[in-house]
Amino acid sequence: MSGKFLRDAWYVAAWTEEVGRTPLARLLLGEPVVLFRREDGVAVALEDRCCHRRAPLSKGKLLGDRLQCGYHGFTFDASGACVRIPGQDRVPPSLGVRAYPLIERHGYLWIWMGERAKADPALIPDFHQNHDPGWTAVRGRLPIAAHYLLVVENLIDLSHVGIVHAKTIGTDDSRAELQFERGDDVVRVVRTPTEVVTAPHNLKQGLAERSVLEKTIDFRPPCQVAIAVTTTEVAPHKPEPRALRLIILNACTPETEASTHYFWASCRDYQLGDKQVDAFLTKVTIDAFNEDKDILEAQQTCIALDPAAPTVNVHADWGGVQARRLVAQLLDSETASAKAAAE
Amino acid sequence: MSGKFLRDAWYVAAWTEEVGRTPLARLLLGEPVVLFRREDGVAVALEDRCCHRRAPLSKGKLLGDRLQCGYHGFTFDASGACVRIPGQDRVPPSLGVRAYPLIERHGYLWIWMGERAKADPALIPDFHQNHDPGWTAVRGRLPIAAHYLLVVENLIDLSHVGIVHAKTIGTDDSRAELQFERGDDVVRVVRTPTEVVTAPHNLKQGLAERSVLEKTIDFRPPCQVAIAVTTTEVAPHKPEPRALRLIILNACTPETEASTHYFWASCRDYQLGDKQVDAFLTKVTIDAFNEDKDILEAQQTCIALDPAAPTVNVHADWGGVQARRLVAQLLDSETASAKAAAE
Amino acid sequence: MSGKFLRDAWYVAAWTEEVGRTPLARLLLGEPVVLFRREDGVAVALEDRCCHRRAPLSKGKLLGDRLQCGYHGFTFDASGACVRIPGQDRVPPSLGVRAYPLIERHGYLWIWMGERAKADPALIPDFHQNHDPGWTAVRGRLPIAAHYLLVVENLIDLSHVGIVHAKTIGTDDSRAELQFERGDDVVRVVRTPTEVVTAPHNLKQGLAERSVLEKTIDFRPPCQVAIAVTTTEVAPHKPEPRALRLIILNACTPETEASTHYFWASCRDYQLGDKQVDAFLTKVTIDAFNEDKDILEAQQTCIALDPAAPTVNVHADWGGVQARRLVAQLLDSETASAKAAAE
Repeated sequence: MSGKFLRDAWYVAAWTEEVGRTPLARLLLGEPVVLFRREDGVAVALEDRCCHRRAPLSKGKLLGDRLQCGYHGFTFDASGACVRIPGQDRVPPSLGVRAYPLIERHGYLWIWMGERAKADPALIPDFHQNHDPGWTAVRGRLPIAAHYLLVVENLIDLSHVGIVHAKTIGTDDSRAELQFERGDDVVRVVRTPTEVVTAPHNLKQGLAERSVLEKTIDFRPPCQVAIAVTTTEVAPHKPEPRALRLIILNACTPETEASTHYFWASCRDYQLGDKQVDAFLTKVTIDAFNEDKDILEAQQTCIALDPAAPTVNVHADWGGVQARRLVAQLLDSETASAKAAAE
Repeated sequence: MSGKFLRDAWYVAAWTEEVGRTPLARLLLGEPVVLFRREDGVAVALEDRCCHRRAPLSKGKLLGDRLQCGYHGFTFDASGACVRIPGQDRVPPSLGVRAYPLIERHGYLWIWMGERAKADPALIPDFHQNHDPGWTAVRGRLPIAAHYLLVVENLIDLSHVGIVHAKTIGTDDSRAELQFERGDDVVRVVRTPTEVVTAPHNLKQGLAERSVLEKTIDFRPPCQVAIAVTTTEVAPHKPEPRALRLIILNACTPETEASTHYFWASCRDYQLGDKQVDAFLTKVTIDAFNEDKDILEAQQTCIALDPAAPTVNVHADWGGVQARRLVAQLLDSETASAKAAAE
Repeated sequence: MSGKFLRDAWYVAAWTEEVGRTPLARLLLGEPVVLFRREDGVAVALEDRCCHRRAPLSKGKLLGDRLQCGYHGFTFDASGACVRIPGQDRVPPSLGVRAYPLIERHGYLWIWMGERAKADPALIPDFHQNHDPGWTAVRGRLPIAAHYLLVVENLIDLSHVGIVHAKTIGTDDSRAELQFERGDDVVRVVRTPTEVVTAPHNLKQGLAERSVLEKTIDFRPPCQVAIAVTTTEVAPHKPEPRALRLIILNACTPETEASTHYFWASCRDYQLGDKQVDAFLTKVTIDAFNEDKDILEAQQTCIALDPAAPTVNVHADWGGVQARRLVAQLLDSETASAKAAAE
């Protein structure tokens, strides 16, 4: 488990609906960040620590587009620049707090905590299904007291489903045939499509009695995991057999080295806007993710007892191992690049 | 923020009324201290750790003027000397726990935790207004989870008043003209007297419609801050215009490196003994100090996230900066003197 | 206070009745252990950390005699060998978790966490009174937030009884004459037998009005203390004066360096099976041991404030001092032997 985080990367800081005109404090990558919206609605992320006496700015208040510290009244604009020091006219021009690039896209607020020049919005993963007229999404945020890579590993893995979720969504997938792919910026695990008896809730959608189930899991660094599940009816008599798609978008933002802000969205391209299906999927997902949270937090506690205790990898771990390797490579190259820049 | 405390200094250990015939445990400067009164009423401070097996003596009981450990019954007199070991007749003459010089003055119990020979009672700051027939005081003790110098800094500072206390006592003093003085053992901040409309509660005292407001803040190391507020009516027709004096005496004794026993007293020289005024001033003060506590604890938490994060100083910080400098100088000279003594 | 624990030694892991077909997690000597019974009733102790991803096995479930990890389903037999990896046929033969020798004797489960080859059951102390038709025992387990040697020291010591237990079982034994013996693997403290007025509850047993009270305390490393109390009636006219024996068996197993699983059993050879006596002795013992817990935890807190603060030893401490010395000697020789083996 790494002692540091990738910084040149986009992380989900919050759901768009979490941030408004009341400053929101959030610890991200071990650093205090304050989030708020300007009067024109644009969301802003600043260092949540006044440059004056290190009070958290999130305890202050917004005056228009400016955030006033709740201690001595130092005031910062949305770029982090200090624009007012009570009691004096002059404000040193370089004074301010750090402002982080923040992009609102697909219902997420994406933050870049590394080198500003590298913050290319094109690098934001495509999570459009969370906000797309062709899809309906339910979503949530779950705090998990475990290192973010433990959460990532859990999401990439299929072998735990029949065990951890035995009482909820678990079907024994341990014998499923898996294919693995590794790209420069993606690790993909594909469960080979198999024909199954169509599940009851899919029969209700009008699917034929048998269908083909596909599952594709894409990990993208630093901590995004998209799980796409497609159920295609076996209906040779139909000109175009129907396919139902469900995609679970996951972002596991590190809070500290032992805790994670876990943002999940369950998106479907059928029964759009059906509140009953929303409620059903919300409950199913929360129940299952709380089962994960339970075992992940126990795992974190056990690791903390002896961080040097060994692990072993097996075939089913390929995806998780590659994800860790990819993050480690990026971290190495980031460290090397920072070192080169410093010299 | 210093990692250690000045030891050759008087600190407030407790209010006189807190200490009686039941041993009181209090952590001062990171050290366990037990306070109690002898049968003749004299207050005593001993190391709260039995020399035998390190049980806290505060869990024991008083037998006359002697404190018996609640574990094996080792018994200590008020000088800290061990006078009884159960099960044996002989008590080694040098056996005992540390006794701290403790002086009761003006309603405070002042403790000296440094070199005994230097414990000169004349060095105790003059806080007589807390116990003086010409004054009436209300007082309290507030635990604050912040380094004591953060509390000191808060008390010396006027610029936070209009922000932190905006809903209570806050008047925007940020534009007030300040004068600063630095002596060998005092840092003084004076708000230049200004003529104001007399406040309603002062009008009730019979003051003229306008008055001159003066504020003088005296910091004395290690952690005492006296805030004197004088309101003098503008009444040229009177031979002797009346002046109402309020003085807030503050002692911010370190409990640990991240917490403070904050002792405050609000003393006035008018409406002596008026219980309604007592209740009013108590409420006003507690409400305001809880606002300070809230921001100070948030500041401490933020500093702990990254103790190396920088700060900047502005004009209004002169007092706090000088106070820190004075404490640092005294600490250096104490360290040097201890080193010289050891050589 | 030592920073490590004797490993080549038997420790009480649990009462036999605590362990069944539901895996029990217990931290012993700072290490996670899971306890359960095989279908034939034999109790087993395994490392409570899956070799795969370090989830605690105690969150898994038993399948016959095998424990399945609750995360990915790795399955271990009672010897700790991994016998199943979901999703693959091959299991590397060396894969597994540590299994600890575990012996069930006299109602206790004794665990050996050191070198397996040295785990000689003959070294288990004779605690037969807890399970013997000639005796009746009441028992309990008390978590104490203090280093185990503080608990041991407390049990060996007689001088605290009149102080800590003044309101319960305390009689001032501080003037009792003590004899001390030190063997290779035992420290013994004997209170010289004294004639006393027979206690009321012993009079009810039909004892004569006077009796001789004997107390023998045996410490055996690492952390066992047996306290034997014998009351023999003074009845010269009887051919065989009656003697009532009470023995309190104590095992103070380290949980962490600052906490202890304290297992106590109060065994008597009279009024066998009498539930009223059981209830009386249970209450008396729990009340008294909670008094010990209270002072021990205060002592631990005080020690933690300054672990380097000195202690002094007096005559009455002989037993505790010898016990610490014996443990330290064994620890040294264990360390030396491990070093020799490593070379």
